[in-house]
Amino acid sequence: MRVLGLDPGLRQTGWGIIDMTDNRLRHVADGVVRSDAALSLAERLVQLHDGIAAIIATFSPEAAAVEETFVNKNPESTLKLGQARGIALLVPARAGLAVGEYAPTRIKQAVVGTGRAAKEQVGMMVRTLLPGCLAETPDSADALAVAICHAHHLGTRNRLDQAVRS
Amino acid sequence: MRVLGLDPGLRQTGWGIIDMTDNRLRHVADGVVRSDAALSLAERLVQLHDGIAAIIATFSPEAAAVEETFVNKNPESTLKLGQARGIALLVPARAGLAVGEYAPTRIKQAVVGTGRAAKEQVGMMVRTLLPGCLAETPDSADALAVAICHAHHLGTRNRLDQAVRS
Repeated sequence: MRVLGLDPGLRQTGWGIIDMTDNRLRHVADGVVRSDAALSLAERLVQLHDGIAAIIATFSPEAAAVEETFVNKNPESTLKLGQARGIALLVPARAGLAVGEYAPTRIKQAVVGTGRAAKEQVGMMVRTLLPGCLAETPDSADALAVAICHAHHLGTRNRLDQAVRS
Repeated sequence: MRVLGLDPGLRQTGWGIIDMTDNRLRHVADGVVRSDAALSLAERLVQLHDGIAAIIATFSPEAAAVEETFVNKNPESTLKLGQARGIALLVPARAGLAVGEYAPTRIKQAVVGTGRAAKEQVGMMVRTLLPGCLAETPDSADALAVAICHAHHLGTRNRLDQAVRS
């Protein structure tokens, strides 16, 4: 199963694609979709939309997940993040994918083993779990972490389904 | 010129369409696009997307505007609103419309004459400015107020352009 992870942000949205075969993970691709700060907010959201839509068209993921973020700094930046996050949820859903959502602590737990891991630890574990993956930007490493978390969740669910059936 | 106004919300997004001819306003239609709270967030955003896209396809507006809202209550509701607002900005922009944004005080100023007007006063003035319009829900009255504010702004800009040219 091919999984898309997204770490939404208005300035740049991280994305990562992994394949899961028999609970073994493989890195496929990662990167960031950027929006041009000189454009209007609506035009920037169209850039995020088109970038995510192009990734889905190119890699044909079968499942998607988005980080569940809460920004407490100020309402303005929370609203900005919400707008980008709306697009990150919308595009895979319109492409017919079920979209999972995971809190940052849950993602860290799945990747590092503790919900209180530092950002650098997440990047390091992502590179360890996905050999050959560079995950050069922190946002794309976070997006790969979301994909790994979702893959674990789906893998566990599949094993539970099989256990119930057998 | 036909103007679409949007008052975004995850549960329901208000919409209103007006025509402006020589600075005279006419009500065309208004209503709300609802999302089903029993569905996932991504699916609810698809419902808002499809509803707004259907309104644009039906009424072919030439300009659009969205209320600029800041929710200070809690980050969670601000994030929710941001997600709905992202869709409200995206859909008209993808349809090729320039999307205006107005703060609530600016909208009230344009419609009632004071930025500190109560919600009921906005609804009453919308019905006065657009004879024959019922604007039955507060959200669609707010959306019509956004459209009126944008029409005023565009009308003033047109008159300024004409003054500069003459």
